[in-house]
Amino acid sequence: MFRHTQRMQFEAKPEQPDALYAKKLQELIGGAWGEMTVTMQYLFQGWNCRAPGKYKDMILDIGTEEMGHVEMLATMVARLLEGAPAETTAGMVDQDPVLAAVVGGMDPEHAIVGGGGPLPADSVGTPWNGKYIVSSGNLLADFRVNVAAESQGRLQTARLYNMTDDPGIKEMLKFNLARDTMHQLQWLAAIEQLQEDGLAGTIAPEALLDEENQQHSQTLWGLSDGTTADQGKWASGTAPDNQHQFHYLDQPEPLGDLASAPPPDPQLYATNTEDRGIAGKAKDKIKDTFKE
Amino acid sequence: MFRHTQRMQFEAKPEQPDALYAKKLQELIGGAWGEMTVTMQYLFQGWNCRAPGKYKDMILDIGTEEMGHVEMLATMVARLLEGAPAETTAGMVDQDPVLAAVVGGMDPEHAIVGGGGPLPADSVGTPWNGKYIVSSGNLLADFRVNVAAESQGRLQTARLYNMTDDPGIKEMLKFNLARDTMHQLQWLAAIEQLQEDGLAGTIAPEALLDEENQQHSQTLWGLSDGTTADQGKWASGTAPDNQHQFHYLDQPEPLGDLASAPPPDPQLYATNTEDRGIAGKAKDKIKDTFKE
Amino acid sequence: MFRHTQRMQFEAKPEQPDALYAKKLQELIGGAWGEMTVTMQYLFQGWNCRAPGKYKDMILDIGTEEMGHVEMLATMVARLLEGAPAETTAGMVDQDPVLAAVVGGMDPEHAIVGGGGPLPADSVGTPWNGKYIVSSGNLLADFRVNVAAESQGRLQTARLYNMTDDPGIKEMLKFNLARDTMHQLQWLAAIEQLQEDGLAGTIAPEALLDEENQQHSQTLWGLSDGTTADQGKWASGTAPDNQHQFHYLDQPEPLGDLASAPPPDPQLYATNTEDRGIAGKAKDKIKDTFKE
Amino acid sequence: MFRHTQRMQFEAKPEQPDALYAKKLQELIGGAWGEMTVTMQYLFQGWNCRAPGKYKDMILDIGTEEMGHVEMLATMVARLLEGAPAETTAGMVDQDPVLAAVVGGMDPEHAIVGGGGPLPADSVGTPWNGKYIVSSGNLLADFRVNVAAESQGRLQTARLYNMTDDPGIKEMLKFNLARDTMHQLQWLAAIEQLQEDGLAGTIAPEALLDEENQQHSQTLWGLSDGTTADQGKWASGTAPDNQHQFHYLDQPEPLGDLASAPPPDPQLYATNTEDRGIAGKAKDKIKDTFKE
Amino acid sequence: MFRHTQRMQFEAKPEQPDALYAKKLQELIGGAWGEMTVTMQYLFQGWNCRAPGKYKDMILDIGTEEMGHVEMLATMVARLLEGAPAETTAGMVDQDPVLAAVVGGMDPEHAIVGGGGPLPADSVGTPWNGKYIVSSGNLLADFRVNVAAESQGRLQTARLYNMTDDPGIKEMLKFNLARDTMHQLQWLAAIEQLQEDGLAGTIAPEALLDEENQQHSQTLWGLSDGTTADQGKWASGTAPDNQHQFHYLDQPEPLGDLASAPPPDPQLYATNTEDRGIAGKAKDKIKDTFKE
Amino acid sequence: MFRHTQRMQFEAKPEQPDALYAKKLQELIGGAWGEMTVTMQYLFQGWNCRAPGKYKDMILDIGTEEMGHVEMLATMVARLLEGAPAETTAGMVDQDPVLAAVVGGMDPEHAIVGGGGPLPADSVGTPWNGKYIVSSGNLLADFRVNVAAESQGRLQTARLYNMTDDPGIKEMLKFNLARDTMHQLQWLAAIEQLQEDGLAGTIAPEALLDEENQQHSQTLWGLSDGTTADQGKWASGTAPDNQHQFHYLDQPEPLGDLASAPPPDPQLYATNTEDRGIAGKAKDKIKDTFKE
Repeated sequence: MFRHTQRMQFEAKPEQPDALYAKKLQELIGGAWGEMTVTMQYLFQGWNCRAPGKYKDMILDIGTEEMGHVEMLATMVARLLEGAPAETTAGMVDQDPVLAAVVGGMDPEHAIVGGGGPLPADSVGTPWNGKYIVSSGNLLADFRVNVAAESQGRLQTARLYNMTDDPGIKEMLKFNLARDTMHQLQWLAAIEQLQEDGLAGTIAPEALLDEENQQHSQTLWGLSDGTTADQGKWASGTAPDNQHQFHYLDQPEPLGDLASAPPPDPQLYATNTEDRGIAGKAKDKIKDTFKE
Repeated sequence: MFRHTQRMQFEAKPEQPDALYAKKLQELIGGAWGEMTVTMQYLFQGWNCRAPGKYKDMILDIGTEEMGHVEMLATMVARLLEGAPAETTAGMVDQDPVLAAVVGGMDPEHAIVGGGGPLPADSVGTPWNGKYIVSSGNLLADFRVNVAAESQGRLQTARLYNMTDDPGIKEMLKFNLARDTMHQLQWLAAIEQLQEDGLAGTIAPEALLDEENQQHSQTLWGLSDGTTADQGKWASGTAPDNQHQFHYLDQPEPLGDLASAPPPDPQLYATNTEDRGIAGKAKDKIKDTFKE
Repeated sequence: MFRHTQRMQFEAKPEQPDALYAKKLQELIGGAWGEMTVTMQYLFQGWNCRAPGKYKDMILDIGTEEMGHVEMLATMVARLLEGAPAETTAGMVDQDPVLAAVVGGMDPEHAIVGGGGPLPADSVGTPWNGKYIVSSGNLLADFRVNVAAESQGRLQTARLYNMTDDPGIKEMLKFNLARDTMHQLQWLAAIEQLQEDGLAGTIAPEALLDEENQQHSQTLWGLSDGTTADQGKWASGTAPDNQHQFHYLDQPEPLGDLASAPPPDPQLYATNTEDRGIAGKAKDKIKDTFKE
Repeated sequence: MFRHTQRMQFEAKPEQPDALYAKKLQELIGGAWGEMTVTMQYLFQGWNCRAPGKYKDMILDIGTEEMGHVEMLATMVARLLEGAPAETTAGMVDQDPVLAAVVGGMDPEHAIVGGGGPLPADSVGTPWNGKYIVSSGNLLADFRVNVAAESQGRLQTARLYNMTDDPGIKEMLKFNLARDTMHQLQWLAAIEQLQEDGLAGTIAPEALLDEENQQHSQTLWGLSDGTTADQGKWASGTAPDNQHQFHYLDQPEPLGDLASAPPPDPQLYATNTEDRGIAGKAKDKIKDTFKE
Repeated sequence: MFRHTQRMQFEAKPEQPDALYAKKLQELIGGAWGEMTVTMQYLFQGWNCRAPGKYKDMILDIGTEEMGHVEMLATMVARLLEGAPAETTAGMVDQDPVLAAVVGGMDPEHAIVGGGGPLPADSVGTPWNGKYIVSSGNLLADFRVNVAAESQGRLQTARLYNMTDDPGIKEMLKFNLARDTMHQLQWLAAIEQLQEDGLAGTIAPEALLDEENQQHSQTLWGLSDGTTADQGKWASGTAPDNQHQFHYLDQPEPLGDLASAPPPDPQLYATNTEDRGIAGKAKDKIKDTFKE
Repeated sequence: MFRHTQRMQFEAKPEQPDALYAKKLQELIGGAWGEMTVTMQYLFQGWNCRAPGKYKDMILDIGTEEMGHVEMLATMVARLLEGAPAETTAGMVDQDPVLAAVVGGMDPEHAIVGGGGPLPADSVGTPWNGKYIVSSGNLLADFRVNVAAESQGRLQTARLYNMTDDPGIKEMLKFNLARDTMHQLQWLAAIEQLQEDGLAGTIAPEALLDEENQQHSQTLWGLSDGTTADQGKWASGTAPDNQHQFHYLDQPEPLGDLASAPPPDPQLYATNTEDRGIAGKAKDKIKDTFKE
């Protein structure tokens, strides 16, 4: 169960409205790597967690915090939209390139749909959706997605930080940047913890390593001309799990046979060169029908 | 530019058709973590790469290989659908629970839309879409997504490996499992390489670390009752970057003010308790209009 | 800011697993009218609320509660999936129609993607998305959506209640049904409160009623043959706002002119019968080019 | 079956083109609450209606009318796009902020995809989709959605009415506003009619009211600090059905047990702290394999 | 403007209910090539048509007819769902594989969301969306899509025709098949008409044929090994426009330069091997900050 | 299997950056009719092809080429985004309408998500998705979609060609236009080839022509008033298959019965006027419960 606190986790006060920036900031709310994503991802992972105790508790703590980040950003967007030019007409834009950029560039749904408030969508208006998140039950696989999410999230926040001079926005983003730093470190530490606790190795999942085709688990297939792909750590030497040895295969031949599909059920009417007899006859018959 | 080889990278021959399994296998083609995702993700990352040479080359090599994995899986699905019961009627199912499961469970679009062939969709029929991938230009952030993608991908492949007894399918999946192992290791090695080459640190991106609010980059906010979240490596001690020190904050107070939104443009007609006067008057006037 | 409580708002314990029912229950989690919808809708409405005090507080209270409903349902799904037949093969289904229904009917992503856990999707696997919700800033318009959401939600819950005999599931759904009843009443009361407080009338929004084309605000256009649509309260008598008078127009004539579109920019190459001269000449010239 | 009349229901002639406004107007065509939504929603509800006679007839009448609204708006958009600057170049914008706003702000798909014509999408380009509508078979639940749709629709129309000075557009919108007023009243009257005819009560659906957990159908859960949510009509007194009595629960304790998920099928490889033994052994074995 | 006729264009009466077939039939309602697609595609094309008279009139006639096809299919689905096993429990399935297939295979949303009625979605539950259609203003380009739509539509209808023995369903589908035949012929004739009227040639659009790089408008690039692609009419001889001459290029070399991307704005933090100096310094500084 | 060549198929060098044009060009990458569509459509058709030899080989050759077109366009977009104004502030726009158009109009995700690189999305930011393509197994039906795709694709390319003066962009688009011309001709030739080889006739698919309701395969239903739709080649004379004879039906009567839906399962709680007795009683009972 959840409870709400009326005060926000951190302050979210712009110095002045900026409808164009409000649109950009939507990326951090409802973008693929925005706060709705981490909220829902961590909560579903927490509910799906089969390792009770510190793991489950930690995951749910962060998920709960992220919900509060959606709140901060949503509030910031509402404040940036104060006085957004709902009724602007050509005459107003006439002498003012700044207003032209805003009028042309602001998200029209901020006014028409949201009434001056935030939307569960990204900076181009695509709505957030549930396929952005994953909760697999395998903590190593999931924590790696989480590290990635906090990395893309911090990267996008850093870019947005450079796109404004407003001290109030920058103040909030400094907090967000710091939390993203913390959460990157936290998920990296959680991976170390999984490995220390013997719950994961380097490969996710550890299962089937001895059943898989090991001839193919150590080779880089060089499939391009003029490539220097063999010059990295990924092409020779010992792999990060201290067990596999990387090899580079230059322009290797395919190992499989010709790609082909079997003749389908004739009632599906796929074009089939083997079927000439039947198809031809059918065709003739149809022609006859109409000629009569 | 690309070229095609008629033979597949590896063999894709089931021992016998299995329309129900074909549906499940769609997850590896068009699922959020399937082969279409890694193909497109690596190709867009390669085209967007500003570090020419080994990085760009390696990324494009793997992207090109993954395209061949889509081909293998697509071919496997077409073969699993051979003779799928397009025209099955109640009579045929009557005595046969196995057929009942297939008839109830197979993806109807495999017959109606695909004519016995594969679809660019996942195991519940959701079409693949471009928001599944990311290509940010920041290689650390992207390689972390790639590690995650290969981890979720290998996990799903392992689960599917256990869902069949068909030796032909299992043979192909053993190859896929091995390639996923290789690619996990490869992206992990690539992250090490980035760090060795001085192109990345532990935090993605490295930028703004000294500008962010450092008071908040080391603390875990404990926001749940009865939690043991403070017992992991993520709550105390030195963080994985050897620089930050983790702290646990038990039930911290919010730092921000009340969440609130400013009065909007009156022409957007948001309900506003401050506006009673105006709204009330408007209402009275309307009533008058109709009463006359 | 939010806080989390480890205990759930209500119990969520099925008597036994049922993978097929787990799939159906997804509708209440990630369906258009499921708990993710009401959670996000109420929270965004709360953050967007310009009427501070009791309205904003009440909206956020319900939104916070709904988040806990997602948690209950997510937990129930995970428990219903215990022992779901991940590795079932044809042999196992052979003698067992019940198992056949489950094997054919269960959501394959519950095993492959969720590892036995819930998904942010509905009963056919469509992911939840942000366009399901609205937060317009106009409380009358929004509360009406909320009444509708609790009505559709309770209706779907009632249907699902009849689809199981499991006492544990039924126990939880009895709680959910009751909460949906409460929330319907609550939003209906909130609409009454808005009207009592002079913040809304019968029409949403009240604005522009005197500017709109009043000749057309009271008439039902009868556009079908053999209709009895004129026999309801909506076709004659006083309207629910006690001001408009309903009239029925039988087979009215259109009031507008012919639908037509103006000649477009010639560089967009829309087919235009007026352009014969130009297009014809272009065509002749092209033919000449190739004939030489 | 349907028939078409060449004249439009009402006039749709702008005084002059305005590509930027054309983009905004898309919200009324293909937005979640636009005319495509009400068209499809009412038609599907009509086809799904099990109450033949006046209800079914009335629903289909309005659905048929709404189709004509799509036509009016589509025609208006085509006319607003006349001469939209398909070939505008930097030089042309150089001295003209108004043109800058248009060039930056117009929907690029209006030219590239629609050739100067309307799109089945909203003002940010998101395509209309079928999950926007509902047709549940339960008329009370559906009519409530319809009241909400006409409310959001009229609200958005009113906002768009304020965003233009063009008398031709305003003329058409005055008609649309009036029809939305009429339709709000019509669905409200239809709800009264359902109740008069004994087909519905206050709660949708009426079913299971005596089976649900009545202890929980009258209480508002206060889950936030500093709240004034107990000061509304929704927190005390008799509910709108004249049967339930509202109560306010201040900071109530959860009623359920700890949220937890059962151990999953081991072949799904969820991380499970109980499995240490097995997982650990597997890990040791794999290490041995590679060390040899 | 539109009008509605209470009788359907053709009969839609199944001999008996079949919930599994109802799910499959959804493909013809809300699939990418279903009746909602042709309805909306033709109506938008009609509204966007700049060639008034016979073209516009014919397009709108077919669009209006297709709306009636949605009605027929929607009604058929509702009738096929009569008595669908909403409350089926394990006990009922126990002895009955046919019921098992239905219970496992039916679309759960048909009961839970639609209350026994049709949905605006396809056979796997994906909602219809506006990107399925195109209305480009160029009639040749659009009529080609229309030919394709009627071809895919008739193909899917033919497949569904074979999937049932019910005489009532087959009777309706015989009508649908015939209409799809008619409409294929009609759009093919419309293309001939365009060409006769001098409004289109073989290439869509005719524009820019003399400006395009004509060296590349007649060659088939052979990019695969072992190919026999040079053996078709598309590889040699005169092209269907009687002007171009086909040529086959065997394993041609690329004509462009290396793919590469320029150094981006440094504030976007893309990884850039040229930036080592700056990035390295930043990194050193950050390390110092934390070491102090 | 696929291989990659580092050089691009054709050059892709703009003379100077243009962030606004980069956004428009996205339509050709990830739009419904863009290069991702033809790549995936042709590859899936090739893998699904049951006519081995020249057909399959040709299809896969074009699919492989199209992948290289995605590469060219993706590279062009990255180059057009060079120096895109990531950090632009109001001050910079102040005197410059051109910059205003760019700042307002550029795709914000190009900077925030793509870091100055291309996205798998269209010009309004909608992500590419798998429902854009079809691979039916029936080559006539599919080749018709392919003709349509190359027609819409060439049309959109021609429009974009007119929207720029940059010689570098125009040079690349001249190549693209030529390839689209070639591919239109190629698919038209492939249809001729199918017909010559006796694998297809005029109607797709040829099946069931003698079983369908032939009374309805030759008539145009005139469903609009004032129509001139009877004046085209589609309304009289011999149809393009030289077998059917077109007829025009003026204002025909419907052939079917009243649309209606049967009484549903009472446990689905659809409103049903026949159920008054039961529903009424239930209602009375509920009222009693609360009154006590």
